Amino acid sequence: MSYTDDSLALHTDLYQINMAETYWEDNVHKRRAVFDLYFRKLPFDNGIGVFAGLEKIIDFIHHFRFSKSDLIYLKEELGYADDFIDYLKTVRFTGNIKSVREGEIVFGNEPILRVEAPLAEAQLIETALLNIVNYQTLIATKACRIRQTVGEQQLMEFGTRRAHEMDAAIWGTRAAFIGGFDSTSNVRAGKLFGIPVSGTHAHSMIQAYRDEYTAFKKYAQRHKNCVFLVDTYDTLKSGVPNAIKVAKELGNQINFTGVRLDSGDMAYLSKEARKMLDDAGFHETKIVASNDLDEETILSLQAQGAKIDAWGVGTKLITAFDQPALGAVYKLVSIENEHGEMVDTIKISGNPEKVTTPSMKKLYRIVNTINNRAEGDYITLENEYPNEEEKLKMFHPIHTYISKFVTNFNAINLHHDIFMDGKLVYETPDLYEMQAYTKDQLDLFWDEYKRTIHPEEYAVDLSQKTWDNKMENIKEVRKMVSGMQR
Amino acid sequence: MSYTDDSLALHTDLYQINMAETYWEDNVHKRRAVFDLYFRKLPFDNGIGVFAGLEKIIDFIHHFRFSKSDLIYLKEELGYADDFIDYLKTVRFTGNIKSVREGEIVFGNEPILRVEAPLAEAQLIETALLNIVNYQTLIATKACRIRQTVGEQQLMEFGTRRAHEMDAAIWGTRAAFIGGFDSTSNVRAGKLFGIPVSGTHAHSMIQAYRDEYTAFKKYAQRHKNCVFLVDTYDTLKSGVPNAIKVAKELGNQINFTGVRLDSGDMAYLSKEARKMLDDAGFHETKIVASNDLDEETILSLQAQGAKIDAWGVGTKLITAFDQPALGAVYKLVSIENEHGEMVDTIKISGNPEKVTTPSMKKLYRIVNTINNRAEGDYITLENEYPNEEEKLKMFHPIHTYISKFVTNFNAINLHHDIFMDGKLVYETPDLYEMQAYTKDQLDLFWDEYKRTIHPEEYAVDLSQKTWDNKMENIKEVRKMVSGMQR
Repeated sequence: MSYTDDSLALHTDLYQINMAETYWEDNVHKRRAVFDLYFRKLPFDNGIGVFAGLEKIIDFIHHFRFSKSDLIYLKEELGYADDFIDYLKTVRFTGNIKSVREGEIVFGNEPILRVEAPLAEAQLIETALLNIVNYQTLIATKACRIRQTVGEQQLMEFGTRRAHEMDAAIWGTRAAFIGGFDSTSNVRAGKLFGIPVSGTHAHSMIQAYRDEYTAFKKYAQRHKNCVFLVDTYDTLKSGVPNAIKVAKELGNQINFTGVRLDSGDMAYLSKEARKMLDDAGFHETKIVASNDLDEETILSLQAQGAKIDAWGVGTKLITAFDQPALGAVYKLVSIENEHGEMVDTIKISGNPEKVTTPSMKKLYRIVNTINNRAEGDYITLENEYPNEEEKLKMFHPIHTYISKFVTNFNAINLHHDIFMDGKLVYETPDLYEMQAYTKDQLDLFWDEYKRTIHPEEYAVDLSQKTWDNKMENIKEVRKMVSGMQR
Repeated sequence: MSYTDDSLALHTDLYQINMAETYWEDNVHKRRAVFDLYFRKLPFDNGIGVFAGLEKIIDFIHHFRFSKSDLIYLKEELGYADDFIDYLKTVRFTGNIKSVREGEIVFGNEPILRVEAPLAEAQLIETALLNIVNYQTLIATKACRIRQTVGEQQLMEFGTRRAHEMDAAIWGTRAAFIGGFDSTSNVRAGKLFGIPVSGTHAHSMIQAYRDEYTAFKKYAQRHKNCVFLVDTYDTLKSGVPNAIKVAKELGNQINFTGVRLDSGDMAYLSKEARKMLDDAGFHETKIVASNDLDEETILSLQAQGAKIDAWGVGTKLITAFDQPALGAVYKLVSIENEHGEMVDTIKISGNPEKVTTPSMKKLYRIVNTINNRAEGDYITLENEYPNEEEKLKMFHPIHTYISKFVTNFNAINLHHDIFMDGKLVYETPDLYEMQAYTKDQLDLFWDEYKRTIHPEEYAVDLSQKTWDNKMENIKEVRKMVSGMQR
């Protein structure tokens, strides 16, 4: 169970290794292949997504190699042959990766990350990339929804105990920070990522001292800034009065920063607590709420006029409770043939939305230069340059009869070079920069796309050439399948 | 971001450290404290739960210490004072832990794990314990539901790409194995835990070779056992016919183990594929299904007479999609006072089900010695010995007027000693033993508790003394709170 040389190269599905073996055996493992990483549908019926995970992907790729114990396991337990093991021993990632930046606003059916690499290498990294992007992007998007709901109020991530094991706790809270959260309760995440940490005390501290008065006072002896948790026995009859009593007694010795409500009717309790604090002269003392909150309950509390100033969000954020999986996929769109030429490829499905879009492609955001708002995202073939066009025809990728012409635009290439020929060429921005970037980018989008309920659908369109190429590929596959039937 | 001495001691909520500081400042940090770890409600409206996470907890506790970089972070970034940092430097876990064994069948409101330790130590480990138990128990329980649904058919865990980051992928698949799964696609989990790994190839392999015939044949050159994925272009018109063609051509050179359906109408496609395979003489070739499956869709496919022999389950299992969080909590139930006596303690709530059960307690499973079925679980105070009783009165902990007397029983103590005075005294069973244990234990329970829809509620009852003690504690707190009001 414990290996000193545990690597993440085996953090993959077995079929990737079987395919690599097949390619290697057939000597096609070095053929150039292009894979698109994208999700089809935004989570939570949200109108926008927030991409996260790139920093971890970079780290994964950068350190990608099979360790000694990995190779021994593959050989002795799984029975792979020596010659193939010898090949695996030497495998490094030598390809190119382009990606949108972390914190970028993203949408369904656009290539947020693109891998162009020797076939076997591209395959061996797939599972880890999806594992990382699917979770981190899900949480950054959820966090952004909650941020859209609370405006400028304080948001604290409290979910570690309900996260799906340890990595989710720390990478989830990092994603939440990118999406707009202010702090985390997880101290390790604070240490590793520099996220501000927050938290005061639990119910058990009251129980340990038996009564709230003693417990609050003991806490205040060591801690200048005090948020007292007031619902251990009875929020209004005991918790808030004891907090006020201690704060009055200690006067300037402490900052009576807040009281925290963690159970019961938050709308009612917060209003009553506000009155009690105000009557006692503590107008600056904030009311912090926590207890299975999410954007929906927060919206409801706001509508009820709850007097809550800061929000602790745990379970519902860190597990993306209402939709705990994002379905990002990684699809082969182009591959080198035996003559060294790149040939586009397609996966067909009974469900039209699952048909892939062939070829190596670029991703542009079309921004109207008059009002500085995004008109839509625009997917082109590699050799198209939309900024050289005077007007763009953008049409709906499913309902193609819906189209518009855009003039006065700037087409911003959203892809950044991350790895070139296996070399890391990208400098990862600071986490605070990512958060600020997301916040800035949100201004590009009309409010209609950003509302958390029934948002308008933002346009993600194919260029005419990309569309025509897709139709051509579909036709060819149909021909091949019907050839099979004869 | 990267530390060579990263430890998990900081994998905790900030408030645990603030409380530890308060206790240490007040010199009560060494007072003996007892915490119960339990969840209130079974997930998925299931009738039983399967406990998992103990092995990781043991590893966490065993290695619990603040590393140099942890202490520097706490001091320099969070501003904790030197004297407290000096204390943290020396902290190890020196207490006792009792726990049910991994794979044990568990229920709501029973202490599945019990920590008895110096107050500050017990507090510092809380968050990690909950993080581990909540996720692993959730997944073991979900896996057990799916196992109950498929009987003896093969179950493969395929969820890595949708798991919540990397730890969830590997610890989740380990929990799934305990709950009854046969294999995982995650190679690293295979290496770390010895779980059988399974998987063949993806759609991309077909695309890379352009047509299925070539791709299947290339795969078969290196792989004796072949499961061919048949839905890249058209399952019935192209995938299955090509698989059969290759299998016929290669004859005894390969084992044509199966075809895998990954999209479309599984009920229809599996029946048609079965006919085609049978007509071609491949009666032993299995049909494997995957595509967002869970116990509900499997039940429906069974009802439709789908001809599926093996199931690949991913997203819905590894994320516990329909309820992605278990709400296990960790509550102080007894604490040493200034005279060195243990005093029980309670947390009251407006919601009666959230009121804790005070005192150090034991957990028994009452098994009827005549039919060898479990009658219920029975929670007693530390000094009670139910096996010395001739008959037990068991009454419903909420609707107390519902009660029964049990005679001819054996009261099995479910708690095992894990740590004693900080020393590990438990030998962790092999993972296969855990899986077998769970399977065996299931036989103790009537089918009514195990069905996946509307199961009967299994009795988890308090002994009369435990109940009376709880009522006494509630009365005392009420007195304290009303004293505050005067």
